[in-house]
Amino acid sequence: MNSGQPAPGSQASLRESNRLRVLDALRVQGAMTQVEIAGQTGLSPATVSNMVKELDASGAVELAPSIRNGRRAVLVSLATGNTLLAGIAFGDRDVRVAIGTGPRDVLASQRMPLPADHPADEGMERAARLVHDLVEKVGKSMPDVKAVCLGLPAPVDSVSGQVGSEGILPGWRGVAVASEMEGHLRAPVVLDNTANLAALGELKCGALQGIEHGVYIKLSYGVGAGLILGGELFRGSAGTAGEIGHLTIDENGPVCRCGNRGCLETFIGSRALLDALTPTHGALSLREVVARALDGDPGCRRVLSDAGRHLGVAVAGLVNLVNPEVIVLGGLLSRVGEVITAPMLASLERCAIPSAAASVSLRPPQLDTDADVVGAIAVAEERHAAAEGLTAALAAPT
Amino acid sequence: MNSGQPAPGSQASLRESNRLRVLDALRVQGAMTQVEIAGQTGLSPATVSNMVKELDASGAVELAPSIRNGRRAVLVSLATGNTLLAGIAFGDRDVRVAIGTGPRDVLASQRMPLPADHPADEGMERAARLVHDLVEKVGKSMPDVKAVCLGLPAPVDSVSGQVGSEGILPGWRGVAVASEMEGHLRAPVVLDNTANLAALGELKCGALQGIEHGVYIKLSYGVGAGLILGGELFRGSAGTAGEIGHLTIDENGPVCRCGNRGCLETFIGSRALLDALTPTHGALSLREVVARALDGDPGCRRVLSDAGRHLGVAVAGLVNLVNPEVIVLGGLLSRVGEVITAPMLASLERCAIPSAAASVSLRPPQLDTDADVVGAIAVAEERHAAAEGLTAALAAPT
Repeated sequence: MNSGQPAPGSQASLRESNRLRVLDALRVQGAMTQVEIAGQTGLSPATVSNMVKELDASGAVELAPSIRNGRRAVLVSLATGNTLLAGIAFGDRDVRVAIGTGPRDVLASQRMPLPADHPADEGMERAARLVHDLVEKVGKSMPDVKAVCLGLPAPVDSVSGQVGSEGILPGWRGVAVASEMEGHLRAPVVLDNTANLAALGELKCGALQGIEHGVYIKLSYGVGAGLILGGELFRGSAGTAGEIGHLTIDENGPVCRCGNRGCLETFIGSRALLDALTPTHGALSLREVVARALDGDPGCRRVLSDAGRHLGVAVAGLVNLVNPEVIVLGGLLSRVGEVITAPMLASLERCAIPSAAASVSLRPPQLDTDADVVGAIAVAEERHAAAEGLTAALAAPT
Repeated sequence: MNSGQPAPGSQASLRESNRLRVLDALRVQGAMTQVEIAGQTGLSPATVSNMVKELDASGAVELAPSIRNGRRAVLVSLATGNTLLAGIAFGDRDVRVAIGTGPRDVLASQRMPLPADHPADEGMERAARLVHDLVEKVGKSMPDVKAVCLGLPAPVDSVSGQVGSEGILPGWRGVAVASEMEGHLRAPVVLDNTANLAALGELKCGALQGIEHGVYIKLSYGVGAGLILGGELFRGSAGTAGEIGHLTIDENGPVCRCGNRGCLETFIGSRALLDALTPTHGALSLREVVARALDGDPGCRRVLSDAGRHLGVAVAGLVNLVNPEVIVLGGLLSRVGEVITAPMLASLERCAIPSAAASVSLRPPQLDTDADVVGAIAVAEERHAAAEGLTAALAAPT
């Protein structure tokens, strides 16, 4: 039963293939004129014209008058029903923004580097500019953005709406992020932690789909975890659940940026890894360490493998406490694969309750470093649906 | 509006007070003849006779023919509608059994000491005998017991139905506890961990009532935790969630009975505490340590206070990962109160993410050491309700 699928090589199959080429081009490039679509897809202007008419009639694309090179033109864009959602995810060194109509329907995304320890104002201004650019790129305007979720790589206190630690992300300390960002974007902004958001992204459309109890560990400049419990993102009573990076590994260990001693991050955070390599390798960036490890550099591999071993001890604690069925290891460092996962699993087996260790399996992420912005769009979608539901409830006769 | 409440001092108030005296006596003493009730309550035989007639008519008590001192007699017992539930909780040195009609309606309970490292057979036989005794005491027979929950102070693997570690409770290793116990009791038996059951007991009728995300920590010969997440007991994917006792505190620390090194239990388990006191205090039992600490003995207080400090580090990890709103510290050692809780809270504040530490509060337990058997009756009740539901579904027309 190939219902709905045209036979290969037929007229219908050719039209379907052209249709997908046009839609893909619009997804990647954003809004375009028909001439630009023809240039991008290699289809003839006549074919594009017919296809756009068909897509417009079926509601798959939208047409909007615009100006291109000083002339009036009609821009073709993917249909969004005038509801755009934005996801913003800050890393320690960058910000990534995506807009879409849902977590599975990202229309455009972009990444911009940021200086380490940037002030919150600078980060928020750049993120807001990216949102504006992307909205324009898909041929929409800012009032179409109905909800935004902004992720930070730090514990986020859902009660105060601020970063829940004085020392982590010092440039953002005491800043009322959501309300300032609402000033930039004129849309409701929800705050969350990027490890939580990445867990949600993998739950909605990645490696955690259909999982009852799972953990996403984000291993990048710092380390955090997002918990999926009972098939939903679990944030705890104040939004800070999953803070594996600040588990105490050694009470008398090095002082951590959070103010405690011997946190997991003091052993496997970027500062510890890069400092360990400085005497032999000079000043490297974390991305360079990952690239060299993949190229076989023994020092870089050793430092990452030791990080995996320490991570495994903390993950064993998490497994003892939460007893998940699946762990997904994501984030920049996860790209080195077994260099980290093999020692991590060895520590896990050594340190966790046997039956808990036996019931958990490790899966690779499916969304790479986009998991958090995808999750952010999912949170924005929930926020928008809740607001719509409220509006509907208020409008309903009593 | 004092609806239903008789005015104080009135005839009705006197009758109500007599009624409660009779019911309380039956709850505490189990099934009795009317002569015995009169002896226990101090009421006249005529008053008891009238009261029992009234209680029987309203369905609050049940009458059953029996033999007392070689004569035929009628035993009066609390009405249970022929549905009894049994809860069994093993400690490292004892077993406690309770029977009732629900977690709030315990009819009778009893504790029996057990030798340390007893074989499972011996423990199960004693527990079964206690169940038989208590059922008889309340004037019922074994077929009235519809479901049983048995708690062990060890990780319980819900998949295998066995203890989830080779080294913890070695006498119980590889034993199919539920099915063996079903042989003794002829009723379905569910297995769980006693820290989980205590958390459930405090959730159903104690300090965790109405809590969304809470943790019960059971500090006794070992240490375990039960997690309440989303208003329900959270067991994880294989039933072993909450195993705080085997969190690694020091990777190079002492070898633990679970086979790992430097687990929390190697610092605060009974062996560590008693060994620390042997040179100065000689051989003490854990109960003696608690009693002496309450009497002001400085050595006993110091050892328990150090245990509180170590416990706080692990609890900080739990708070970082799960972000609960309430922690209840229960179990034998919790009786010393601030001697343990003050250093525990100090460590928690020092080691947890500030916003997570700020959002959690400590509450004393309300059920003392009965929390686990009460929780066991709650699990038995769920088990029975599920079976009844299944029966009803099977009987229902399709």
